[in-house]
Order: sequence, then structure tokens, then C-alpha cells
Amino acid sequence: MNSLQVSKIIPSFSWGSEKIFIAGPCAIENEEDLEHVASVLEACQWKFLRGGAFKPRTSPYSFQGLGEEGLKLLNRVSQKYHLYSVSEVLSPEEVPLVAEYVDVLQIGSRNAQNFSLLKKVGECKKSILLKRGMMMKLEEFLLAAEYIAEKGNPNIILCERGIRTFETATRNTLDLSAIPYLKEHTSLPIIVDPSHATGKASYVTPLAKAALSCGADGLMIEVLFLGLLKRQVQLRKRVLPLFPVIVE
Amino acid sequence: MNSLQVSKIIPSFSWGSEKIFIAGPCAIENEEDLEHVASVLEACQWKFLRGGAFKPRTSPYSFQGLGEEGLKLLNRVSQKYHLYSVSEVLSPEEVPLVAEYVDVLQIGSRNAQNFSLLKKVGECKKSILLKRGMMMKLEEFLLAAEYIAEKGNPNIILCERGIRTFETATRNTLDLSAIPYLKEHTSLPIIVDPSHATGKASYVTPLAKAALSCGADGLMIEVLFLGLLKRQVQLRKRVLPLFPVIVE
Amino acid sequence: MNSLQVSKIIPSFSWGSEKIFIAGPCAIENEEDLEHVASVLEACQWKFLRGGAFKPRTSPYSFQGLGEEGLKLLNRVSQKYHLYSVSEVLSPEEVPLVAEYVDVLQIGSRNAQNFSLLKKVGECKKSILLKRGMMMKLEEFLLAAEYIAEKGNPNIILCERGIRTFETATRNTLDLSAIPYLKEHTSLPIIVDPSHATGKASYVTPLAKAALSCGADGLMIEVLFLGLLKRQVQLRKRVLPLFPVIVE
Amino acid sequence: MNSLQVSKIIPSFSWGSEKIFIAGPCAIENEEDLEHVASVLEACQWKFLRGGAFKPRTSPYSFQGLGEEGLKLLNRVSQKYHLYSVSEVLSPEEVPLVAEYVDVLQIGSRNAQNFSLLKKVGECKKSILLKRGMMMKLEEFLLAAEYIAEKGNPNIILCERGIRTFETATRNTLDLSAIPYLKEHTSLPIIVDPSHATGKASYVTPLAKAALSCGADGLMIEVLFLGLLKRQVQLRKRVLPLFPVIVE
Repeated sequence: MNSLQVSKIIPSFSWGSEKIFIAGPCAIENEEDLEHVASVLEACQWKFLRGGAFKPRTSPYSFQGLGEEGLKLLNRVSQKYHLYSVSEVLSPEEVPLVAEYVDVLQIGSRNAQNFSLLKKVGECKKSILLKRGMMMKLEEFLLAAEYIAEKGNPNIILCERGIRTFETATRNTLDLSAIPYLKEHTSLPIIVDPSHATGKASYVTPLAKAALSCGADGLMIEVLFLGLLKRQVQLRKRVLPLFPVIVE
Repeated sequence: MNSLQVSKIIPSFSWGSEKIFIAGPCAIENEEDLEHVASVLEACQWKFLRGGAFKPRTSPYSFQGLGEEGLKLLNRVSQKYHLYSVSEVLSPEEVPLVAEYVDVLQIGSRNAQNFSLLKKVGECKKSILLKRGMMMKLEEFLLAAEYIAEKGNPNIILCERGIRTFETATRNTLDLSAIPYLKEHTSLPIIVDPSHATGKASYVTPLAKAALSCGADGLMIEVLFLGLLKRQVQLRKRVLPLFPVIVE
Repeated sequence: MNSLQVSKIIPSFSWGSEKIFIAGPCAIENEEDLEHVASVLEACQWKFLRGGAFKPRTSPYSFQGLGEEGLKLLNRVSQKYHLYSVSEVLSPEEVPLVAEYVDVLQIGSRNAQNFSLLKKVGECKKSILLKRGMMMKLEEFLLAAEYIAEKGNPNIILCERGIRTFETATRNTLDLSAIPYLKEHTSLPIIVDPSHATGKASYVTPLAKAALSCGADGLMIEVLFLGLLKRQVQLRKRVLPLFPVIVE
Repeated sequence: MNSLQVSKIIPSFSWGSEKIFIAGPCAIENEEDLEHVASVLEACQWKFLRGGAFKPRTSPYSFQGLGEEGLKLLNRVSQKYHLYSVSEVLSPEEVPLVAEYVDVLQIGSRNAQNFSLLKKVGECKKSILLKRGMMMKLEEFLLAAEYIAEKGNPNIILCERGIRTFETATRNTLDLSAIPYLKEHTSLPIIVDPSHATGKASYVTPLAKAALSCGADGLMIEVLFLGLLKRQVQLRKRVLPLFPVIVE
């Protein structure tokens, strides 16, 4: 395998000792909610706002996202709060559209071996956040990154987000051994998504701390059901304090 | 979940009590080899010839297939031997091209939750062979089929091809419980691919028999390394006799 | 690994082309129920009656079995109906007691790597039914059998009963690839337990047929909730007809 | 499930804010090696020396341990260096013998659902270190602890040591989500064994740090191949510095 060169993750971002802290709602629903998250992020000095505009839903009958409208909203809000924007791209055809609006294109775990998509984002100039497939061996994960790099794009952030195992107490099993393994085999930055890994708000903080302790270069935290949160203040209090706790 | 209606699998194929027997090389390499397989299939009364023209390789440095040239070759050979043709499609953009040349479009296991691709093949008029993802629960498998059907294409063949487990004695673990489960939940035909499941030639025949015994509607058998086989007669003898044994 | 020699499975049983068909309740509850099962078995020409007297329960608060009383009952009923008896042994200390009453000592999947127990049954003269652990690689399964054989007891029946995977549609994932693998690596007889593997009555018959089709030397079928069945005739009708269907 | 009460872990040990740090060789081989480890532990203020006298080997042809001789050696060395001793017990019959020599009886992962053994250690007065089975759901892990507690022994230390998954880059997959889960469901102390989980010396330190960061009450570190280490100074340097690094 060729070794990958990472020049800088985000063209206009001074990559150095800083961690890549990303947070935001799973799906963008409206401007008010997104602004609320963005203001919290700015206050916590987290630099990356994520939000899904195109959603890879297991069922065709689930909400599929706001599409281009969502991207515009994400773009506007992230600029207003001086944040980098992150959003998922689902098909090769959509790459130019998503790349027009966001700083970091995310490849979701279900598309981690969608080679047509990997090649296509390899041709674009934006940074790529590649999530590990839920049944992907670490070696295959690196080969998927290689698909992107081989097309000329070395700006890849790897993201461990849990693998599928027999254990049902958590949504997936977060595989933190991936951190030292990937550090040994690549110079790409590696972040951890404890939200999707555990599926449980109270496990996010301990596992986020664990991830940073064993060398992760950053975190991606899901701000769940924000629209709902606005109306359920007590629930929001449980989730939003994550940021200061983790950043401390 | 909506129930799916299967009118007939292949427009010009008299679907009824007949089994869907598919065989062919993983990747189409040359006409001579493909003709050889086709002639064996015709003699065995297997009706479907498969061959990969676009290959989803784990590594970007592996052979990626012959592309359109391979599709033309598959089209020519399958017509000559009165066979239906089956080939994999990797991205939404390639759907019209592949649909022009083949009777059945295959969605590989790595793309089983590539929802953009599922929607796109849902819009075409050809039959779709949907392979189970190696990390896919059966409920998710049915929901992936639903993506295709929801776009108007009910001609879907489901294919169990092994799931990823801790066991390393075989390439994957063939999950034959999927057959009674799927029979209970859908009226779509279900076939089994014991070749990719086991990764071992000597296990293909026993597991093919097992699949048919528990109700599978057909089989997909990989004829591996045929180019190599031509030059290693003793090896070919081991693989080709599979057909009569299984069809008996 | 030494190759294992199987002289004859049951000292008084004419082992040859005959299959090892075992059935019975998970836990022995009362004589009436056990007699009922035994009479059905005799009518179907199944030769082995199983019943649990000592139960390995996940929770200490579940019913732990009738103990020696259950063994006596099993012994009496199996002799009356000319059946061989099979019962599980849980600890080295209980081996002599269980061996006094039954023809075949079963090692359950949770004890498949309980090496003290394996050594102890290796010293007794009765046949041993060794169930595969639910997270046991096939190579480890053979090494567990080796523990028994190494102590001087070659009369071992291997039993595939499903492995633990991410799939939750069935209780476990029945791994029928184990049959050709084990046939290739040992001369020991291999049977299949589709009841524990699937946990669903309607899947037992198709998977039992599949097991026999790919070369299994027999079956072990759970007759679930017989006490309950007696009072729910319609349910019993669903389960008991398994035998004729499978034996046909 | 009854809630478990932990009075104090080791009768003579002032349990409080202190972590349970355990280290030692997999198998005790000779006094010189064991003394060497013990002296390092004492210097690092680790309080627990572990060493295997009875070994649960996958193959019957592997070294099975020194037996009682090993226990005596462990007892002598741990007293000399003012350490608590930890050693594995394999069968109910051996419980009184092992309890005579050591402070903490370990139940290995292969015996985590050996209910006869769990009941037996539940009757003894020593502390029990219960390792999670490699195929054990967290709920089942707690139920196994319940078997011990139900017999009257509440002095149980739970140990997460990796579960079996499809990933082969590490020996097992360390499941750190187990820490917040177990903290939520029990008041028993939970330690982590990163050595067996990863099987790779260079991953032990990062994962040990991660374990402590997310709330683990201690660590169990394998000092591998110490006999060999004595003769390969450069290798020892890689492993022994673990202690200060982790304890810092």
C-alpha cells in the first residue's frame, strides 16, 4: 500500500496541534435549530459544524433530508459562526453539488466500500471524512482511503464509529484499538464518533474521553433531535453540556 | 413494509417451477473462456450466464474489469448459447449502460445499502439481483429491496451470500436460516451463492444441495479463475463437474 | 492434531449407515411428558431420547433441573421405549453420576472449552456429544474434542448448533459450512441442532433437511415446552409432526 | 436482577479511591522471573501480582502450568514483595486448593458461564476476578456475577478483556462501552485487560489509558514471555516501561 500524504486537512484551516472537533444534528431540519448548535460550538471553540442534507436511510419511507436547501442553510450558518461545514454525500452525481457548499465531504459507513463514490470524491478538492464501514476490517478501511488518495486527494480524515458485533447493549461496538492500529499504519488524522457507536447519550462523554486518551485526533458528536430538544429543555441540558465536558 | 409483487423475473423467461441457476466467472477476461463456460451451462440446462465487467475491488490496485468491452462480450456469448446474462452495476451513472447489454443487473454486497444505486435500478426495466450485504440484518435486506420496488421495479431476486462473523475457516458464514426467514416475509425469489460464502471449491456442492433442500429458488456459482483453469486441466475437473452434480 | 478414531458411537448400537436422530425436551419436567415424547420417537424410529436433568441457566434464578431424579426418569423411560438416553453433564464431579444413568453424556456449548470437564468425560466409557461453543472457531472445536480423545475416549459426536453473530432474526446463526469442514478434518460423526440455532419452530424442518443434504450424520431436535404443549394441543400439532417430516 | 453489594474487595486491603492494578506473567515458569516482575510492581506501587498455575489451553498438547508448585511460588513471592496474589481456578474441585494460596481467584473467559465453577467460588471467602466471556453479552456477564453473589460472596471484580468479532487486526475487540454500561448497572468494580484484548504490546499503553479515562477501576496487564524477556533485554525494555507510563 502506498503511504498517504496529508498536506493540510482544510485548505484554510491551520492544521497543527489542534483537534478536529465536529458536532451537529444528524439531519438539518430548520435554520433556528442549526443556529443554536452553531452558537454553542463557537462558544466552545469547536471548529466544525456538521449537518445531513442527504440522508442514507435504511428504509425508503424515512425522511430523506432537505437536499440542496439543507446545504445552503448549512453553508450560511457555518459562515456566520466562523465554522467549517461537514455534510454527507451519497452518490457520485451529487459530489459537485455538495462540494460547492461544504468544506468537508463525509462518506458514511454504508458507503465506505462504494468505490465509484470514493473515486469521485478523490477527484474533488475538498477534504473528505471517511467513516469506517460497520463490518470493515481496518486493512479494508485503509484501502478505501487509498481509493480516494489514488485519485489525487490526500486530505482524508478517518473516522472510527463502531463495528457490528453480537453485543446489543450498545448500537455498535466502538473499536478503540483502531486508533493505535491506524496510527501505526498511516499518517492520516483519525477521529472517533462515540454517538453512533453507542447510541446512548450517557455513554458519549466517557467514550469521547477514552478516544482522546488513546490518541484520537478529534471527535464527531451527534446532537440528537435538536428540534425536539428546543421544546424539551431538560433533555437539552443533558446533551449540550457534552461540549464543555469534552473540550475541557 | 409494503409487500412486494413479482410479476415475472425475466420478461422473456417463463418463470414458474424452474429454478434460477446462475454461473460464470467473477471477472470476464476473454471470449474463449466465457464461451467455454456458456457451453457447459447450456449443456447442463442452466439458463443464466454471469460475468463481471465492472469489478468492486477492495484495493484500487487490483484489476478493475474490462468495462463496456466486457458487457458486449457477455451479451454476444449469452445470446449465442441462449442464456440470460447477469452482470454487476457499481454506480447510478452506469445503470443505463449495463441495462443496455444484460438481462439481470446485479447489486453487489458492498453496495447493498448504496441507496442512490438502489433507487436508480428501481427505475430501470430489467430484473435486479440484490446480494445481501455482509453486515446486513435480514430486515435491512428486505428494506433495501423495498428501495428498488418503491421506484416501480418489482423484479427482484434476493441472494444470500454469507455474512461476516468471527469464523475464519470459511470466507464468510453462509446463513441458510435466511431462506425460511425470507420465505416467511416476502414472495420474492431467493437464491444462494455458496461460492462467495465459503471461498472453497470443495464446500460449494454440499452447501448448494443444502440451499436447495431448505427451499432456495436457485443458485449462483462462481466459476473461478477460468483462464487459469484452461491451463490447469486437473483443477478444472474439480470445478466444472459442479454443474451436473448440483442440477441433478 | 492427532486424528481421532471412532470405533462405535454407542457400545450396544449398530453404528453404520444409520443416522443419529436425537430428540427430547430441554428440561425433564415429569414422566408423563417424557413418555409421550418417547412413544413418538419409537414410532418414528428415532433411536435417541434426550432430556436435561442439570440445566446450565444464564440466570441463577431460572429452574435448574430435576437433578438425579430427572436422570432416573430418563433412564426408566428410555429403556421402556428401547431408546438410547442423552443428558447434559455440567461439572467434573457429576460425571460419574450422569454416566451411571445415560448412554450419551452431552457437553453443552457454554462448557465446550471447560477443559476440566472435557478431561473428565475423556476418562469415562460412555459416548460424548460435544456441542460447539457459540463463539468457537472450528479449529478450536476440534481441539476441544481432542481433549476428550486424548484421555482415551474416542466415542465423540460433534454437534453444530449455531454461532453468535450480529444477526438477531434467529437466536444464533446455523453454520452449515461446518459440516464439509469437519468432514474434511475428522472422521467423527457430526450432527446438527437446528432448534437451538434458530429458536423458531417453523425454521427447524427446512434447516434439518439442509443439514442432512450437506452430509450431517444426524440431528438433535428440541421438543420445546412439552408440559405446555400437553395443554395446548394445537401448538403440539405444530411441533410433533417434525419427526415424520424430517425422517422421511 | 438483585443488586450486588461490595463490602471490600480484598479483606486486608483498604479499598477506596485506589485503583486495582494487576500484572504478572500468563504462566508462572520459575521463581527468578516471578521475583523480577514482583520487584517492578512493588517499585511502581502496583498492588497485585498475577500468575497462572493452572492454564486453560485451547490445545491439550500445550503447557498446562506448574499446578500446586506454581501456587506455592506465587504465594511466597507475593508475600515477600507485599503484593496481593491473583491466580486462575479451572474447576470446582480445585477451588479449595487455589483459595489456600491466593488472595483473588480468577475465573477465565472460557469459564465465564461454567456455572458449577461460579457457584463453587461463590461459597469461598476470597475475592473473585470474573473475566467476561469472549461471546458474552453484558447482561449475561452480570448474570454470571450474580451466580457468585447468590452463593454469598459479593467480593467480585469484573474484567472486560475483549470480545470476539470479525476484526482480525487485534486478537479480540476491546469493548470499552462496557465500562459506562456496567457502571450504570452495578456497583462492582470493573477493570480492563488490554493485553489479552489486543494481543499486541504496543497497543497496551494507549488502551490502558483509554480504559482509565472512561472510568475503569483498574487494569490487568500481561507481562508476556518474561522468561524469554530475561534473555532479550531489548524486548523487556518495551514491555516493562508500561507500568510507570500507566500509573503516572
